[in-house]
Amino acid sequence: MHDPNEAAAELRRCVTQYGFKGALVNDTQRAGPDGDDMIFYDGPEWDVFWSTVTALDVPFYLHPRNPTGTLHDKLWAKRKWLVGPPLSFAHGVSLHLLGMVTNGVFDRHPALQIVIGHLGEHIPFDLWRINHWFEDVKKPLGLKETCKQTIRYYFEKNIWITTSGHFSSPTLQYCISEVGADRILFSIDYPFESFGDACQWFDGVELNDVDKRKIAKGNARNLFKLGAFKDADVDHAEGEKAAAAKL
Amino acid sequence: MHDPNEAAAELRRCVTQYGFKGALVNDTQRAGPDGDDMIFYDGPEWDVFWSTVTALDVPFYLHPRNPTGTLHDKLWAKRKWLVGPPLSFAHGVSLHLLGMVTNGVFDRHPALQIVIGHLGEHIPFDLWRINHWFEDVKKPLGLKETCKQTIRYYFEKNIWITTSGHFSSPTLQYCISEVGADRILFSIDYPFESFGDACQWFDGVELNDVDKRKIAKGNARNLFKLGAFKDADVDHAEGEKAAAAKL
Amino acid sequence: MHDPNEAAAELRRCVTQYGFKGALVNDTQRAGPDGDDMIFYDGPEWDVFWSTVTALDVPFYLHPRNPTGTLHDKLWAKRKWLVGPPLSFAHGVSLHLLGMVTNGVFDRHPALQIVIGHLGEHIPFDLWRINHWFEDVKKPLGLKETCKQTIRYYFEKNIWITTSGHFSSPTLQYCISEVGADRILFSIDYPFESFGDACQWFDGVELNDVDKRKIAKGNARNLFKLGAFKDADVDHAEGEKAAAAKL
Amino acid sequence: MHDPNEAAAELRRCVTQYGFKGALVNDTQRAGPDGDDMIFYDGPEWDVFWSTVTALDVPFYLHPRNPTGTLHDKLWAKRKWLVGPPLSFAHGVSLHLLGMVTNGVFDRHPALQIVIGHLGEHIPFDLWRINHWFEDVKKPLGLKETCKQTIRYYFEKNIWITTSGHFSSPTLQYCISEVGADRILFSIDYPFESFGDACQWFDGVELNDVDKRKIAKGNARNLFKLGAFKDADVDHAEGEKAAAAKL
Repeated sequence: MHDPNEAAAELRRCVTQYGFKGALVNDTQRAGPDGDDMIFYDGPEWDVFWSTVTALDVPFYLHPRNPTGTLHDKLWAKRKWLVGPPLSFAHGVSLHLLGMVTNGVFDRHPALQIVIGHLGEHIPFDLWRINHWFEDVKKPLGLKETCKQTIRYYFEKNIWITTSGHFSSPTLQYCISEVGADRILFSIDYPFESFGDACQWFDGVELNDVDKRKIAKGNARNLFKLGAFKDADVDHAEGEKAAAAKL
Repeated sequence: MHDPNEAAAELRRCVTQYGFKGALVNDTQRAGPDGDDMIFYDGPEWDVFWSTVTALDVPFYLHPRNPTGTLHDKLWAKRKWLVGPPLSFAHGVSLHLLGMVTNGVFDRHPALQIVIGHLGEHIPFDLWRINHWFEDVKKPLGLKETCKQTIRYYFEKNIWITTSGHFSSPTLQYCISEVGADRILFSIDYPFESFGDACQWFDGVELNDVDKRKIAKGNARNLFKLGAFKDADVDHAEGEKAAAAKL
Repeated sequence: MHDPNEAAAELRRCVTQYGFKGALVNDTQRAGPDGDDMIFYDGPEWDVFWSTVTALDVPFYLHPRNPTGTLHDKLWAKRKWLVGPPLSFAHGVSLHLLGMVTNGVFDRHPALQIVIGHLGEHIPFDLWRINHWFEDVKKPLGLKETCKQTIRYYFEKNIWITTSGHFSSPTLQYCISEVGADRILFSIDYPFESFGDACQWFDGVELNDVDKRKIAKGNARNLFKLGAFKDADVDHAEGEKAAAAKL
Repeated sequence: MHDPNEAAAELRRCVTQYGFKGALVNDTQRAGPDGDDMIFYDGPEWDVFWSTVTALDVPFYLHPRNPTGTLHDKLWAKRKWLVGPPLSFAHGVSLHLLGMVTNGVFDRHPALQIVIGHLGEHIPFDLWRINHWFEDVKKPLGLKETCKQTIRYYFEKNIWITTSGHFSSPTLQYCISEVGADRILFSIDYPFESFGDACQWFDGVELNDVDKRKIAKGNARNLFKLGAFKDADVDHAEGEKAAAAKL
């Protein structure tokens, strides 16, 4: 995804012609004469793309990629075991997503729905600390020009997190408290992780059934505008409809 | 509340003539020749009353009362400091509500909505243990005749808990995990507790805003079919409507 | 256990002659001319027994028993599925233990160590509420005469809780927050529960290793003054000694 | 801190001559001909320094610093509001500390005690995920040569986290579950944060008193080998000694 207009056109084609339910794109692209620079999607030149995403009303999944070039050499080459899921993925996506937050992408595109994996790429852990610094320190210095709402607001209105690759019950419980069961999606991270491991874990998570069903399928059904699931809708579809009607 | 038919008629009068939003009744009534017996509402003779409650589509709040008679003398007289909020209230209501569960009240009245205070009168603490005994031990012995669903099912479909008199953030967080933020109502327990203490506590609870708003007012609005709140609906009413539409 | 002096003598015999590590006694005994009364151990007549327990420096496990007599008839007979682990056990022991608290047993015997099962018989769920009522309401009315410390103080100095029969990770995590991992003991509740179920659950609890080892064996070793465990001490004995030395 | 031998000598001088209780050093140093490289302390050339730290038996606090040079230009310049506490600090220290873990510093210096702030610079959030990747994926590929223990082992034996700048009760509760109250230190982050804010928050944290005292002072006293505190030791010193003796 190097050119915003081309990316917008391709997304439109995929959604309207082929029924794509959303987009999943890697964190940053190589750029510059020697491929050592990176394209982030948090600058105003990407507004045309985000406008298309919201016009099509589909979510966008920001997926990690490996560090490359100078960045790789200076930070990761001598710590090679940390490349990927142990650390570099979360560094990449948390920077990118919070760049979108502070550079005003969500203010300019309030309907934009972004999904990030791994229970939020470390950001839920620091919601208090980020909120405190954004609101108490950085907004008086000027951040309020490009980031009109609070970090918690964007996590309530624009951001979804998935369980992909993070099969930890205490971390999930913590995320339920910090971002709410209404914004969490069950996910696996295949082929990094196996379906069996993910499902066995989630089946055993000790959590009230309402939130468990939301995370397991209800939230995804709403976000991706899915119809009835093939086998899993017999028992609970009525209950979910009733719950939605009540809320 | 001694006679089911009279109680049903009085509830109907209050709701239809005076717009009552529901009923709040004390746990058990004195009965018997010397007033030493207790009336519980979990037997089949109360079906006429519960049918009226569900026909009127209003919730019923089961409120504690003090132990009396022989029961008081044998258990509480020598432990007088435990009468009331420290212990006897939870003993009374947990017995009564679980009596309704095991005696089939919710099976016979699946739309019945019961509210209990004090974050659930100890029952959420033992949901695992109660579920294990009901399902694994007692249903094979016959409980399945009168209690067709699981304890977690009734907590999902029929029971609400309030924060009345229990201003503990860890206990609230635990209840969110066990019964879900969708079934918890902010409440005070006035005149046992003061409005100031309850509100100061809840304002400071560290919880995602979606669930905090549900507990603060959204759930009550739905359960009691309230209209717009006087002052508190400016900011979030739109967001809540959108959330309900999405779910 | 009907007579304090006989009970004290029998405990002394068991500990000094046979090496008993402590005592496990049922909640209340039948008493009175028709067996309808109950003996509680929270009155001053039992001081001679508690003095012996502390002089022998052994813990006392307060185990539930079934309700009987008038009490059974009035409360439990029509709710028979709630007798035992689903509810009556917790009602019995919580009343008895909090009776000991409010009747001054721990003030008169500050070294007394009481163990209760089932993750604390509902009491941890209400520590905030009990503390609030004891301190803010009932001590000004006189409770301070017989209950000089706070409920949290007794849970820190005198009371231990076990996991017996309560294999719920969220409840355990909640108890760690409310009473601390230093006061929790792994336990099974055999023959009510099976060794396999208890161990399979605890092995899978997601918890830091330090606290998991304390709960699994370290706390029990200290409380019951056990020596090296048969098979389980190879890896961690040194670490535990070092940790103890550091603290 | 550019030269391991000089740093070791200076630390020795500070500790032995001036009674320093430990060292606090910034994350990486500028290096290279144009100052664009970074010195990390996780390579074998720093063994002489770490040997001195452990010989002196003092802890080492790894403190964040701002990103500089190429790294700053490529990642942070266009996301300037994320420099410092909102994100870059945690990126820096988490990379550095996990570099020490995977490059064998703790295996070669098993007594080394490292302190990191901000409730662990995001690492506790991913303990499950890091452990899974280290143990299941990366050790079969060779990580086991330089990282013989698990990530949880190092967090139990070598790493301490502080509350500095992270005054969130849910995050603290989560960290107690993941790393244990025995390894957490109350801290403020002055002058980034105020004493008043930190203390007001911690005083209000709803947590059992044993763990609260450990975090408030007991752990620091042990780690830094402090004597009696000036005003705060009257009530609890005896209790803490007894607890240590019991463990």
